[in-house]
Amino acid sequence: MRLLLINPNTTQSMTEAMTTVARQIASQQAEIVPVTARTGFPYISSRAEAQIAGAAVLDTIASHQSDVDAVIIAAFGDPGLTAARELFDLPIVGMAEAAVMSAAMLGERFSVVTFSPHMSRWYSDCVHQTGLGARFTGVRCPVTAPDTLENVATALRQDLIDLARDAVALDGADVVIMGGAPLAGLAPVIAWDAPGILVDPIAAATLQALALLRLAPSYDNRTNRPLHKTSTGLGTELTAVIAGEKT
Amino acid sequence: MRLLLINPNTTQSMTEAMTTVARQIASQQAEIVPVTARTGFPYISSRAEAQIAGAAVLDTIASHQSDVDAVIIAAFGDPGLTAARELFDLPIVGMAEAAVMSAAMLGERFSVVTFSPHMSRWYSDCVHQTGLGARFTGVRCPVTAPDTLENVATALRQDLIDLARDAVALDGADVVIMGGAPLAGLAPVIAWDAPGILVDPIAAATLQALALLRLAPSYDNRTNRPLHKTSTGLGTELTAVIAGEKT
Amino acid sequence: MRLLLINPNTTQSMTEAMTTVARQIASQQAEIVPVTARTGFPYISSRAEAQIAGAAVLDTIASHQSDVDAVIIAAFGDPGLTAARELFDLPIVGMAEAAVMSAAMLGERFSVVTFSPHMSRWYSDCVHQTGLGARFTGVRCPVTAPDTLENVATALRQDLIDLARDAVALDGADVVIMGGAPLAGLAPVIAWDAPGILVDPIAAATLQALALLRLAPSYDNRTNRPLHKTSTGLGTELTAVIAGEKT
Amino acid sequence: MRLLLINPNTTQSMTEAMTTVARQIASQQAEIVPVTARTGFPYISSRAEAQIAGAAVLDTIASHQSDVDAVIIAAFGDPGLTAARELFDLPIVGMAEAAVMSAAMLGERFSVVTFSPHMSRWYSDCVHQTGLGARFTGVRCPVTAPDTLENVATALRQDLIDLARDAVALDGADVVIMGGAPLAGLAPVIAWDAPGILVDPIAAATLQALALLRLAPSYDNRTNRPLHKTSTGLGTELTAVIAGEKT
Amino acid sequence: MRLLLINPNTTQSMTEAMTTVARQIASQQAEIVPVTARTGFPYISSRAEAQIAGAAVLDTIASHQSDVDAVIIAAFGDPGLTAARELFDLPIVGMAEAAVMSAAMLGERFSVVTFSPHMSRWYSDCVHQTGLGARFTGVRCPVTAPDTLENVATALRQDLIDLARDAVALDGADVVIMGGAPLAGLAPVIAWDAPGILVDPIAAATLQALALLRLAPSYDNRTNRPLHKTSTGLGTELTAVIAGEKT
Amino acid sequence: MRLLLINPNTTQSMTEAMTTVARQIASQQAEIVPVTARTGFPYISSRAEAQIAGAAVLDTIASHQSDVDAVIIAAFGDPGLTAARELFDLPIVGMAEAAVMSAAMLGERFSVVTFSPHMSRWYSDCVHQTGLGARFTGVRCPVTAPDTLENVATALRQDLIDLARDAVALDGADVVIMGGAPLAGLAPVIAWDAPGILVDPIAAATLQALALLRLAPSYDNRTNRPLHKTSTGLGTELTAVIAGEKT
Repeated sequence: MRLLLINPNTTQSMTEAMTTVARQIASQQAEIVPVTARTGFPYISSRAEAQIAGAAVLDTIASHQSDVDAVIIAAFGDPGLTAARELFDLPIVGMAEAAVMSAAMLGERFSVVTFSPHMSRWYSDCVHQTGLGARFTGVRCPVTAPDTLENVATALRQDLIDLARDAVALDGADVVIMGGAPLAGLAPVIAWDAPGILVDPIAAATLQALALLRLAPSYDNRTNRPLHKTSTGLGTELTAVIAGEKT
Repeated sequence: MRLLLINPNTTQSMTEAMTTVARQIASQQAEIVPVTARTGFPYISSRAEAQIAGAAVLDTIASHQSDVDAVIIAAFGDPGLTAARELFDLPIVGMAEAAVMSAAMLGERFSVVTFSPHMSRWYSDCVHQTGLGARFTGVRCPVTAPDTLENVATALRQDLIDLARDAVALDGADVVIMGGAPLAGLAPVIAWDAPGILVDPIAAATLQALALLRLAPSYDNRTNRPLHKTSTGLGTELTAVIAGEKT
Repeated sequence: MRLLLINPNTTQSMTEAMTTVARQIASQQAEIVPVTARTGFPYISSRAEAQIAGAAVLDTIASHQSDVDAVIIAAFGDPGLTAARELFDLPIVGMAEAAVMSAAMLGERFSVVTFSPHMSRWYSDCVHQTGLGARFTGVRCPVTAPDTLENVATALRQDLIDLARDAVALDGADVVIMGGAPLAGLAPVIAWDAPGILVDPIAAATLQALALLRLAPSYDNRTNRPLHKTSTGLGTELTAVIAGEKT
Repeated sequence: MRLLLINPNTTQSMTEAMTTVARQIASQQAEIVPVTARTGFPYISSRAEAQIAGAAVLDTIASHQSDVDAVIIAAFGDPGLTAARELFDLPIVGMAEAAVMSAAMLGERFSVVTFSPHMSRWYSDCVHQTGLGARFTGVRCPVTAPDTLENVATALRQDLIDLARDAVALDGADVVIMGGAPLAGLAPVIAWDAPGILVDPIAAATLQALALLRLAPSYDNRTNRPLHKTSTGLGTELTAVIAGEKT
Repeated sequence: MRLLLINPNTTQSMTEAMTTVARQIASQQAEIVPVTARTGFPYISSRAEAQIAGAAVLDTIASHQSDVDAVIIAAFGDPGLTAARELFDLPIVGMAEAAVMSAAMLGERFSVVTFSPHMSRWYSDCVHQTGLGARFTGVRCPVTAPDTLENVATALRQDLIDLARDAVALDGADVVIMGGAPLAGLAPVIAWDAPGILVDPIAAATLQALALLRLAPSYDNRTNRPLHKTSTGLGTELTAVIAGEKT
Repeated sequence: MRLLLINPNTTQSMTEAMTTVARQIASQQAEIVPVTARTGFPYISSRAEAQIAGAAVLDTIASHQSDVDAVIIAAFGDPGLTAARELFDLPIVGMAEAAVMSAAMLGERFSVVTFSPHMSRWYSDCVHQTGLGARFTGVRCPVTAPDTLENVATALRQDLIDLARDAVALDGADVVIMGGAPLAGLAPVIAWDAPGILVDPIAAATLQALALLRLAPSYDNRTNRPLHKTSTGLGTELTAVIAGEKT
């Protein structure tokens, strides 16, 4: 089995860090096929960027879908997730959604801890979009953004632990999701020092992709597909998918 | 004052029909600057298509914003609306949102009547996204899609009147929005034959754009803007806007 | 076109201040016909007062409806709005509702800033009644009430700017509505000094009345009207309207 | 103890029917003091009428409050309830709210059955206003209104039983509220013939008034009272209450 | 009439305190039949404990139902309430639910004040389960738990008054419920010293049991009963009830 | 790794059918340890039964937790799930919750199809309790209950396919959960004949248990545990767990 891991950000090092975690999780069960966005932004943090990056995600899936069994959209706000799920006939997993669904099975209320205030609103909207907003205790983040995203997990380690503590003690969270691609792999490392049950989103996404694949959804009889359409200016494969010439 | 009317569909004749309505409304108050999408789909009807068309909308606004005072996104599902509003410093109006907000000031509950079952779900999601879902009585549409969108307003005239009657009598709607670009201009024409208060979305959008402009929002002190960013592969103007070199 | 501007408070100077703003907005498009309540309270701030003043609003509309084209209920809590809209066959605009709907088209989340803690709860209920409570970040007001409402906009100018700043920075509002009749006209004056996008409710109400009029709702086929009824003890015109002898 | 039973409708025979039920319930525990509205409508069925009748209810309470221990607003849509509770320092019970709260303690979901389609929307809004809308299965009523309200409970007896059956079997209601003043006393009479647990609203209101009185709420330390105000054109007692000269 | 007062906790002194309050309320109208749980916990404060104690409550009701007319589940989180109401054909009142419903008829928003932070979450869930969460301002409790529950009402008297003050002044509560069996009888004692309208839950539960009994619900025609079932390992009476051999 | 599969029903054949599915899924990854309830009901279908069976589930987990790595509560209404998750320090998966969370990652709206109308309400409540009610299109079930649960999946095969068709075509579901223990293993068998994406709850539960285990939640630092307590009348192991003497 092959899992397409799409990093909708253009930063190669983030793809590598996330691929490392995904490979540890997938182990012998599946091969991870990483792809880094070639257009877009070093690090998506707004709805405008998600609108653009999400369109590129559809193009990437169209190009790779015949070679893979499932897709992971590996950015915390899940750009393009709803659109992709509507369009393609294979399991599509969003990193934020997978983390949220997993968290909701580990405890009753969950928080998202992240490294910068700029992500707070987009992440929050993203959680509400899953439909589980009533079990969400909010985003906890530092007051100011870090100067660089490089090594942010190491540099802010203690701050992130403190934020997790606040999420648990003040907000009543049972589970804390360490949100954002730059924090990939951090959760198990600080699990002993932080309160609550910590969730690593890329690990959760990989596990959910494996679970959904194994659950073997019968896409053959799927309904509610978009109408087939002609289009102008899209990539060759995406054009074919939307035209119904390729699924 | 100049209003940019973006038709995110690639069908030129829809742009023309909507421009006619918008010009009647704007009259001496503003000039309508119509633009038809050059990439995308003849008629958007799914989330996947809205993801792609919405990204193109951002590009179009970036190219024209220095020459206009406000923007109308002239497709009923408002592709790119949230992203555009976050990114640009001028009033952005969505055709569906404007119709919904207007309807909510004309009566207590409103319905959307449209010409095809394929739009039903996307339109419904779009209304819920405005936050006014609790006053929405649902979408009423024919059981089967028409063979062609050409002259759909004329061909289905009586069906649409009957659907409006059901929306009022069975669903309890006070106001009926005639949704979808191909129905532009129909509401005033059938107002005498249909029950309820009818709303024409493109008329509503034009009026709201004029109202917001006149309300003169102080974008200079706007906060909650996205961070400035470098990007790869976007159009020149959109790149500049996102980089903060142009607003 | 003539717009009836009803101040449901008995304070004549408030009517004058709001009429000045409304006339600037309406300009050549419509004549403003101001009416100040002759019974009721100097300044409504509770549900009990709104219950009484709202009944008087119906009486005032009944007396003037044949001479005007639309109605503005010019008090922030919109006393009598729902009842009036149900009863009369012309567009009825509430100052709070119009501000809220406009704010929701200018940004994603909005706040109400006002001059006294006594209004906080009534205003808050009023926003929730529009159905847009999920996009509302709450009311921001001074801890104590001012000694007098006279010149409250001038006297509290800096406090109100600070409250707007809190609404934006702490509550995450994109748009700030300057709520309450005594603040009529303040928003554009302080727009340069306050963060966020400021909305003046009486300006918003006038613009929405003009927009709804131009949208030309087809009241002739309106349904869901109350049954015609005899009544006892009401004013002559309201009695006739309710009896269905006059619309 | 004395309970003021205010019929906000002007129909004396309804007051008598409701007083009969209330007296049976109150028995030795309290004296029922019935008052029929002298202004207003024979039978309230719209928001406009409720706006007007609710203002009159405040006047009636102001005139009688010093002689009674609690108040029952005896019309199913509870006109003036929120306003009255805010203004006066004694327990105020609404007929609909009391029925809804009682129903919610007798089963999980409840329905309202009534005699005319004209009441359906107002009653429905009224239930949602209590906050218990999520447990409400809706209003069941005949398709057409009866010619007269006189003897409506007798004339429609079988129809009402059939509606209760639908509420239970089709909507999943556990409890059925027989809503509307003309149905006062009907619930126990048809209890053997109708499925579900039936609730008589005027009985529920009387019982809740007795319960709240006995619970002896400490109004002396009540806060969140409206500011004291001067007013123009109100009745003498209501003027004094609002001015804080009388509580 | 006889009211079964079940204390699902195993602490006899709590039963006695609650019985004293219930007897004062019931006076001549009903006899109180107190029962203390023989299995379970000294003081329930978690969902796990409520799961276990709630099952025991069903057993207790089955053993006593033929001798009583109504049941009070006398622990603030109402263990077993929904299950009991589904199973037995007599009025079942929960202490928390009765307090919440009564509070909602005395004011618009209500708070719960209690003596320990450990109860906060369970109580909060319990209020939301009634469906009235939108009118709930939250739980106010001390930062740390008391060393002993004995005399907790006396020992924490001033703290509880201060918490009530915060609930009213900071959270906007009109009514304050003194939650938890150890606070039985406290509300009327501190009514003069605390702001807001205070509610004693056991008094509210007794009053609601009397009201529901008097409302005389027609259980004979009740529907939506569970299927009759064989079972293994339950008490004799509960086995018979579930098998439909006894109601 | 060992997964405890608890069938809270007393019917051994159901345990066997579910164990077969779970073993196929778990394959080499984990050993399934099946346990059938020794007290309770042949097939749980009400809240009263869930209250009792849920308490027994806690006892079963307490007895086995030291020998297993995760727990599956294998009845569709998830009796005891919330309580168990609060009490024990290992992953606890509910069959309904796991199916719902999986469904929500496979499509936007999901339905539950089951074999009897008696389960409809309990299942529906159970879905709403997960927090994902807004994406739930409801339960579809036959109008009448089958005579026997034996071979119900085979006997009702065509009816269940038709119900799935209605869920997709009429209710707009993308995903259909085949709910209830007697339908274990049916989803993949009828996948080719039914529309939509089918989900087998016991397969989903097994997969989620494996995923959560692999996500390796750090229970060591878990907070929000219930207070340690003495108890009376519980099983030895459960007593020890609740007393904090064993985790």
